[in-house]
Amino acid sequence: MISTPTLLLDTKRCERNIQSMLRRARQAQVTLRPHFKTHQSIEVGRWMQSAGIEGATVSSLRMAKYFADGGWKDITVAFPVNVLEMDTINELAQRVTLNLLVLDADVVRRLEAKLTAPVNVFIKMDTGYHRTGIPFDDFDAIDGVVNAITIATKLHFKGFLHHAGHSYDARSVAEIAAVHQDSLQNMQTVYARYVQRFPNLEISVGDTPTCSVMNDFGIATEIRPGNFVFYDLMMVQIGACTHNDIAVAMACPVVAKHLERREIIIYGGGVHFSKDVLTTEQGKSYGQVVVDDGELGWGNPLADVYVSKLSQEHGTISAPFDFVDNIQIGDIIKILPVHSCMTADLMRNYLTTNGNHISTMRS
Amino acid sequence: MISTPTLLLDTKRCERNIQSMLRRARQAQVTLRPHFKTHQSIEVGRWMQSAGIEGATVSSLRMAKYFADGGWKDITVAFPVNVLEMDTINELAQRVTLNLLVLDADVVRRLEAKLTAPVNVFIKMDTGYHRTGIPFDDFDAIDGVVNAITIATKLHFKGFLHHAGHSYDARSVAEIAAVHQDSLQNMQTVYARYVQRFPNLEISVGDTPTCSVMNDFGIATEIRPGNFVFYDLMMVQIGACTHNDIAVAMACPVVAKHLERREIIIYGGGVHFSKDVLTTEQGKSYGQVVVDDGELGWGNPLADVYVSKLSQEHGTISAPFDFVDNIQIGDIIKILPVHSCMTADLMRNYLTTNGNHISTMRS
Repeated sequence: MISTPTLLLDTKRCERNIQSMLRRARQAQVTLRPHFKTHQSIEVGRWMQSAGIEGATVSSLRMAKYFADGGWKDITVAFPVNVLEMDTINELAQRVTLNLLVLDADVVRRLEAKLTAPVNVFIKMDTGYHRTGIPFDDFDAIDGVVNAITIATKLHFKGFLHHAGHSYDARSVAEIAAVHQDSLQNMQTVYARYVQRFPNLEISVGDTPTCSVMNDFGIATEIRPGNFVFYDLMMVQIGACTHNDIAVAMACPVVAKHLERREIIIYGGGVHFSKDVLTTEQGKSYGQVVVDDGELGWGNPLADVYVSKLSQEHGTISAPFDFVDNIQIGDIIKILPVHSCMTADLMRNYLTTNGNHISTMRS
Repeated sequence: MISTPTLLLDTKRCERNIQSMLRRARQAQVTLRPHFKTHQSIEVGRWMQSAGIEGATVSSLRMAKYFADGGWKDITVAFPVNVLEMDTINELAQRVTLNLLVLDADVVRRLEAKLTAPVNVFIKMDTGYHRTGIPFDDFDAIDGVVNAITIATKLHFKGFLHHAGHSYDARSVAEIAAVHQDSLQNMQTVYARYVQRFPNLEISVGDTPTCSVMNDFGIATEIRPGNFVFYDLMMVQIGACTHNDIAVAMACPVVAKHLERREIIIYGGGVHFSKDVLTTEQGKSYGQVVVDDGELGWGNPLADVYVSKLSQEHGTISAPFDFVDNIQIGDIIKILPVHSCMTADLMRNYLTTNGNHISTMRS
């Protein structure tokens, strides 16, 4: 019985998302190494393992440690290496295949000086997102890092990695395709320059929008989407999935209603949903209400019923008159999140449609 | 030694904020019952207790339980009562003075039917914020709830409560004053109507902006600010405090720099800061970098050095050329948060300027 804000996880939708992405990866002849920052859960990781996935991507060393403890043996930390955490790096490097990201020759030398076990490294490339990474056409900088790695004894050069995060700005498959082709072409420039010297060069790419709708990954050897395991409203707006693919929904108690304003107040705020917001036809939306389908299930989105405001613990649902009129205080409302990675990170536990409680790294 | 994103807590600034608000409350002859949702910590609560504060405000029954376990005997849950949590309500009502919020006669009757110990209730009023509460001039609705409470045997009517949260839209003391006077005047209307029938009527008000700068609280008997214990950049922008009052700062490791874009990449993203954002002269800001002042301390804000972008774990700092040029990978950057309540909720632990680790409800 749900009495406080609860994150529901539909195991069938989740399983379908995993299978679908695996099928796409196989067809494109790339390895799927999913990003675990979305689910942050050993249990959901096990579902992926059962489906045949062998490598994990994480966003912090802490997360690497959690999944190493959960039995994962090959982990990529897709974040510029944090030289202040050498103890954790060394502890992990001794027991798993650890793949780190570097983009600076000095950092390579600091790693070499302090590592007590070997690690693999990817060079983080900027192929258009402009968050971080070496610009793909800054050959001097790339050469500097490659050379620093090749003379180091404890670092093994794996290849180049990018994250085309600007695909999140796309609002159609055509726009996703444009980002995909542009960033892959930039990566191709780097690949062409180094493949003779490093014949086993790996190229790791991937973000959920491109991985969900593109079929050809060119020179890439692996993809690292994360969000696809749950998807969310942002991915629907981008064009990467449909509402029916979204595998998580918040279940929130109704605590007040204001018929005169067509508003319902739920127990569920920024500390549960996160403040990620979409601009929709109705205005700002922090979540989309769906049809209730039994205690733990849900169905299609309800037109014009959405989370219009969020404060710390309160959420405001805007809805047509009849919906507000029929709702009772104490009812549970189910809501698709705007950004499932952030909502899952805040909620830190799942209740599956089978009634099982699943914990995460942060539980 | 800081190696991952850490929330620093300056005990002197925090203590000064507590003393200053207590002094204001005494001068205005109102009781200070601070909102604990900002710090969520038994230890910080103890500092308040030592200063002479006897009553707590919280935003959930879970938080009420945490502080009851921490020795607080008089707790107001400043959130419309969640009828799905009757077990927790009854458990708490047996061991502390529990003050609940109601705004619906049916909910009053449901409480009366299921309570096993007496509780106090406030009627939640809407005096202009329009989040929730009975509109101050809807006398039929107020009468309905008052009458339901007075015939109930387990509910004791305390008075009326509002939260003038629209003071957060103010951008000057004059604008804060306008919200304050308007909402108090609306509350006065309610007070005048019921004070003869209930001579001990309590009026509970308060939000950090009005409590920080107003001197006269009229008919109010208590104030419930929360954010003041730490303050933040939003409160500076509103005009409720200065940068020097902000008692928490994030300390984040530098993991990359991009001199060509005048940007620094830190380990510290939306899962640490929250996505609350301010519009400043420079554009969107998720945090303001301050002068480093020893391992755990900090000084004044640095002009033009701020967090311009946040993704899940990455933060981007925009800064002048010289600042970026001088920063080294592995340095720690200290940053004032936009919204300390959300940052504290996400970080779930503090490291004080004295070097002590402080836990919270969510640790």
